[in-house]
Amino acid sequence: MRLITLTTDFGTQDWFVGVMKGVIMSLSPQAMCIDLTHDIPPGDVRAGAFALASSYAYFPRGTVHLAVVDPGVGTDRAAIAVATDSYLFVGPDNGVLSLALQRETVRACHRLENPDFFRQPVSTTFHGRDIFAPIAAHLTRGVLLEEMGPPHPAPVQIEWPRPVFGLDRVTGVTVYVDRFGNFLTNLPGEEIVQRGGQPRVKVGRRILPLVSTFQGVAEGEPLAYIGSTGLIEIAVNGGSARQVLKLKLDQPVEVTWERAR
Amino acid sequence: MRLITLTTDFGTQDWFVGVMKGVIMSLSPQAMCIDLTHDIPPGDVRAGAFALASSYAYFPRGTVHLAVVDPGVGTDRAAIAVATDSYLFVGPDNGVLSLALQRETVRACHRLENPDFFRQPVSTTFHGRDIFAPIAAHLTRGVLLEEMGPPHPAPVQIEWPRPVFGLDRVTGVTVYVDRFGNFLTNLPGEEIVQRGGQPRVKVGRRILPLVSTFQGVAEGEPLAYIGSTGLIEIAVNGGSARQVLKLKLDQPVEVTWERAR
Amino acid sequence: MRLITLTTDFGTQDWFVGVMKGVIMSLSPQAMCIDLTHDIPPGDVRAGAFALASSYAYFPRGTVHLAVVDPGVGTDRAAIAVATDSYLFVGPDNGVLSLALQRETVRACHRLENPDFFRQPVSTTFHGRDIFAPIAAHLTRGVLLEEMGPPHPAPVQIEWPRPVFGLDRVTGVTVYVDRFGNFLTNLPGEEIVQRGGQPRVKVGRRILPLVSTFQGVAEGEPLAYIGSTGLIEIAVNGGSARQVLKLKLDQPVEVTWERAR
Repeated sequence: MRLITLTTDFGTQDWFVGVMKGVIMSLSPQAMCIDLTHDIPPGDVRAGAFALASSYAYFPRGTVHLAVVDPGVGTDRAAIAVATDSYLFVGPDNGVLSLALQRETVRACHRLENPDFFRQPVSTTFHGRDIFAPIAAHLTRGVLLEEMGPPHPAPVQIEWPRPVFGLDRVTGVTVYVDRFGNFLTNLPGEEIVQRGGQPRVKVGRRILPLVSTFQGVAEGEPLAYIGSTGLIEIAVNGGSARQVLKLKLDQPVEVTWERAR
Repeated sequence: MRLITLTTDFGTQDWFVGVMKGVIMSLSPQAMCIDLTHDIPPGDVRAGAFALASSYAYFPRGTVHLAVVDPGVGTDRAAIAVATDSYLFVGPDNGVLSLALQRETVRACHRLENPDFFRQPVSTTFHGRDIFAPIAAHLTRGVLLEEMGPPHPAPVQIEWPRPVFGLDRVTGVTVYVDRFGNFLTNLPGEEIVQRGGQPRVKVGRRILPLVSTFQGVAEGEPLAYIGSTGLIEIAVNGGSARQVLKLKLDQPVEVTWERAR
Repeated sequence: MRLITLTTDFGTQDWFVGVMKGVIMSLSPQAMCIDLTHDIPPGDVRAGAFALASSYAYFPRGTVHLAVVDPGVGTDRAAIAVATDSYLFVGPDNGVLSLALQRETVRACHRLENPDFFRQPVSTTFHGRDIFAPIAAHLTRGVLLEEMGPPHPAPVQIEWPRPVFGLDRVTGVTVYVDRFGNFLTNLPGEEIVQRGGQPRVKVGRRILPLVSTFQGVAEGEPLAYIGSTGLIEIAVNGGSARQVLKLKLDQPVEVTWERAR
């Protein structure tokens, strides 16, 4: 398998991503790099973890997923590679891989400590170029995790807010805002719909209907819906929830049901 | 043919484009995706149609052009695939393909209704992932339009402003502003030049010379020229017409000629 | 060799880069394009030259490096292709290639004057599409520089600030600011470290320690370090030097040493 996805906070204005691809192509000429995104906010491990977890499973089995959101680069945080039933993951051990790994069956996790597979000399500030890109390239060529370093039993898990299920309500928070200004919550749409009844989504002082398409409300009106990741999202039909509703990340969101009569 | 171009309003900060590419590579491992742009303003079908029409013809015959600017996703707007003499086009039937199709000889147009070629389950908000990307992938593998759904006789045409040719003037409007702040108009450069004489381009209160390069005027001065799409554009040498001239989209532009003596 | 890197100031909001790739794929179907960056500030030849010089050497031998930052497009500035021991370079002869070429052993440099290898008709404003992309494509197919035009003996060199080495100090300037708000200087880290002692980096009224990782100073504090290009950079741990220190480009930076006791 020759596919490598890249998720970073390096942006696209500089040459950092290009250089990583150059290193990869030098070591694995048959590799093909696909950008997930490079616009993770600088150092925002949680956003990187969420982006990776929301997208990795759409790729073919055997794809190498490389994620470098690495505010601790140059410290003693570990660098790891992880094999699951279906994919390989490479990145710093700071939780950026953890939301994806929680959905996978992990087969092996190793620390990246064998300098034979690094680019030399290794800088203190750009392990994406010197460690992670070369490791990803070597993985596409069949190098085994065992050759890269010792087993690493417990990769770091990031804190991820869990929804709280009550008798007559489910409470959660906003976790991500996308390019359209839509807010993703941590509320699982399917489980909430399966309770039956007509759910209402309360955020701030507003109570929004849970509808199936944006056109379920009038133009300019806010709505809640089950987004493409399966989570409940908050949006404005034909507009931006960020601008119209002035929402923020980590803002409480509550689902209640209309009373049965 | 394995090339698929992508034109969307999904931006690049999120994982949406990456996920589409994952779906494509899963179904068609030999495919190669090329981004036209993902920064079409959200929901701006006209801008998407113009970007596609301005670029599709530079690709090899047989390229699949995928355009997803889809404010009506989840409604009953049709999804279509179109074969022309030279290319395949895939997208919502909202006009985003129409400016390109007007320049092509259409051989077949079909609605995308056969769920065998969709990713399941189909979301209500991300047909780029669940319908358009899989269809594009299947097209690169030789699946026929007829297998994807019934013929669709009359794809939606978007309104596109036409220049008005008069005896002593041609009038049009600005239709697009690019990254450099240059304004593209709907005025066809070649036809205007062929009238002979020395054309003048009037926009707002300014009258600009039609010159062949930016250096045809002094640094910081505005000019008109025939841009790389063949349309007359308005720019500022070494600057941004958007900033300097305060132009807007849909602003009238008039070409007149110096009187013969 | 089929790799072509692209460095431009075309941005990604429009279709310009996509069109260049279409032209390349039409002429050289086995080519693979890799973006270095398209967000060079419009017309900023120096920034383009620096980005290219900082990244080209990470690619496999034989890679074609295409750089189009071309404010003089349509004037009589030459267009050139250059072969070095390891790479091929294509771009306008305005210095955008010069910082990379200074690090290479140049074998041949030719002007691009043979219209057989251009896309016709050649526009006056988009040589990226009409000249540079086709030339890069032809180079991946083995067309020789000699076929493209006459030798071009002295490509334009851009002015690049050189650090001044004194007995007890080295003076330089900031030359680039990256996506994280880190400022790169023109001061070579290795040469400065090899002098021994404890270097101090003075910028404005601040004196910063030269440390090996961001965590060498407290959160929110400024620091200097040897960046991934080998040059001394100025940053803020967990922040942006651009925002916190209000630095500018071309601002003087001075390295001194603590006195021996």
